[in-house]
Amino acid sequence: MEDTPRGRPSRRQMLLGSAVAGWGAALALGTDAVASGATPTPPQPSPPEDAHGSVTIPFHGPHQAGIAIEPQARSTFLALDLLPATDRDGLRRLLRLLSDDAARLTQGRPALADSEPELAARPARLTVTFSVGPAVVALAGRAVPDWLAPLPPFGIDRLQEAWSGGDLVLEVASDDDLTLAHAVRMLLKDARAFATLRWVQAGFRHAHGSQPSGTTMRNLFGQKDGTVNLVPGTADFESLVWRTDGWLAGGSSLVIRRVAMDLDTWDELDRPGREASVGRTLATGAPLTGTAEHDEPDLEALDAVGFPVISDVAHLRRARSEDPTQRFFRRGYNYDDPPSAGAISNAGLIFTSYQADPVRQFVPIQQRLDELDLLNEWTTPIGSAVLAVLPGCAEGGYVGETLLV
Amino acid sequence: MEDTPRGRPSRRQMLLGSAVAGWGAALALGTDAVASGATPTPPQPSPPEDAHGSVTIPFHGPHQAGIAIEPQARSTFLALDLLPATDRDGLRRLLRLLSDDAARLTQGRPALADSEPELAARPARLTVTFSVGPAVVALAGRAVPDWLAPLPPFGIDRLQEAWSGGDLVLEVASDDDLTLAHAVRMLLKDARAFATLRWVQAGFRHAHGSQPSGTTMRNLFGQKDGTVNLVPGTADFESLVWRTDGWLAGGSSLVIRRVAMDLDTWDELDRPGREASVGRTLATGAPLTGTAEHDEPDLEALDAVGFPVISDVAHLRRARSEDPTQRFFRRGYNYDDPPSAGAISNAGLIFTSYQADPVRQFVPIQQRLDELDLLNEWTTPIGSAVLAVLPGCAEGGYVGETLLV
Repeated sequence: MEDTPRGRPSRRQMLLGSAVAGWGAALALGTDAVASGATPTPPQPSPPEDAHGSVTIPFHGPHQAGIAIEPQARSTFLALDLLPATDRDGLRRLLRLLSDDAARLTQGRPALADSEPELAARPARLTVTFSVGPAVVALAGRAVPDWLAPLPPFGIDRLQEAWSGGDLVLEVASDDDLTLAHAVRMLLKDARAFATLRWVQAGFRHAHGSQPSGTTMRNLFGQKDGTVNLVPGTADFESLVWRTDGWLAGGSSLVIRRVAMDLDTWDELDRPGREASVGRTLATGAPLTGTAEHDEPDLEALDAVGFPVISDVAHLRRARSEDPTQRFFRRGYNYDDPPSAGAISNAGLIFTSYQADPVRQFVPIQQRLDELDLLNEWTTPIGSAVLAVLPGCAEGGYVGETLLV
Repeated sequence: MEDTPRGRPSRRQMLLGSAVAGWGAALALGTDAVASGATPTPPQPSPPEDAHGSVTIPFHGPHQAGIAIEPQARSTFLALDLLPATDRDGLRRLLRLLSDDAARLTQGRPALADSEPELAARPARLTVTFSVGPAVVALAGRAVPDWLAPLPPFGIDRLQEAWSGGDLVLEVASDDDLTLAHAVRMLLKDARAFATLRWVQAGFRHAHGSQPSGTTMRNLFGQKDGTVNLVPGTADFESLVWRTDGWLAGGSSLVIRRVAMDLDTWDELDRPGREASVGRTLATGAPLTGTAEHDEPDLEALDAVGFPVISDVAHLRRARSEDPTQRFFRRGYNYDDPPSAGAISNAGLIFTSYQADPVRQFVPIQQRLDELDLLNEWTTPIGSAVLAVLPGCAEGGYVGETLLV
């Protein structure tokens, strides 16, 4: 593989807002933008078959790079706890080290002292996104924002410590499994003098190129998951995702919820029952009052006998708010881990949302869903974490430098 | 996605021996065949970007379909143990049911009573390969072949029951993660009235299209893994992989070895030490006496001070046999599971080999490696199973019918 020309697209092509990864008209924008008629890049002649392994997402910039992009096929979330001996200087060394690793690996270059440089050669849109918990903010000598705390308890929660919290969370994502495994190992090797691994969650979506670009992910219930979402590049996304204050300017907040999905009891439900639970058809994801995925639902529509077409307890209805600021950017992944003895599945969703303020934007929606949502019958939150997503950094800088100035 | 034309290649294109998956000149043959100048299919005009999700491997034929192909990006191995209540008739019902599931799912059609048909729509070269252990052969009323038994013990083994044995092993492989998860679930649902899950091993290679087709896989030591291999479509492959006798005619045997790789101690080794342990360069996989991956090693070559260039204990030398029948077809996958507390990696190789006779073809090589192989220092077999790979079946038949006639 070393002799193959890299065929890397130009930096301009990769920048967000313009078309990304020109081969085959991939857009960095979400489904909404595609559906609304954004002009796709014309197909390039004779794309190399191995094109996507060489595609890179620029590491440096005002925001971290792994958020406002079309999600990669695989994402692994690593939660680290700082060792008691790690002081403020140690925290800086750690963030410098991991930033340097990420800056290199995401561009297809080996990390410093990378013992398997060949495994770094095909980044396949590798990104590393750094987020921190309250202990790190406090260690840096900063006031901990009120919202940087566990979410209020919800009645549906069955949270396990093993899947919750964390001082430093790295989301490592790529379209290539082997690249991802190597990047995770390099980061953990460099972190281990400063921190221990608290939990790992490995998630997946459809493989790169197995679906048209911009297709909404399906979850393991078979539902389109994430139809209503903020769209990178839009004004709403810019104002609702990024923070603008102090050391967090350019950063965000991250909510990670591990949601177990009971595939066995879900199986007992027939197709109309499944569609009623969400308020959407399974085939296309269209609201039950529409025909296409992104049709606006008609919440007033009644069926022949006078009942609402979209039930009062359907997920679609309960997840909507009248308040347009109660929105966030979802970037979830499926998980499907080995089952425990006697079971045949251990599956669910690694729900993640990015928003400027989780308390104002996310919590009200979650409270509505906690009170009433048919889907609660088959889903159980078993892990939860709230993190501050650090701003990006310029070349020569490191992620976390505004925190530690 | 439901509105997208499938763009499926013709059945002829998919048949083995001819070019497979025409877009971008993918060949079903291994690296050797590509290197030796087999004519690739000319690139098709304007391939759809989502082409590979729709590619199918025909299910029916004299051999099962998941062996003599370029390995898929992901493979999950499921070992099932029959329930005590499963008799010969139950075994037949189980094999009929799973064959029907596999025949449908591999062609992008939902299984019977598939509760998530949308998750079946993009097979991405999905295959399901059925293998059976001695208990199934005995239940069918057949004499158990001598070779269908655990391998002789090796000094390097640290085998765990949890990763060994199994009555029925299904290898489910696809280039798409979500398709794979759904297929695994459908198969396990249909199996659970007859069998329990003994172990699951999930493996990966590079993502589809991130590397040129035919590139040798790298393992998590960074080595090219599987350079010397039988090549589907060659006479050697045909004669050394498939059985020709009785109910197994068209079948094979499968050895699965779970090999833990100690990435931490491997890290202590410098690059020359790593290359000496295998006898190949890390960058290209070329033997230390050559420049290209498939160069023939010069085992007589001496260095300036008179030592062999390829050490007497190098894996390359120890894994070679003078006897040309002591060869097999490897189709291994990496694994990288969540580490236990305090560790940062739990990684290795799901080594698999297909051969007509494991005792004659595989065991002598493994004995040589057990006696002496530098790589043993960093690798530990922790699971082992030997299975009989059933022959394929024709349309209307089922895998296992020759066993149960």
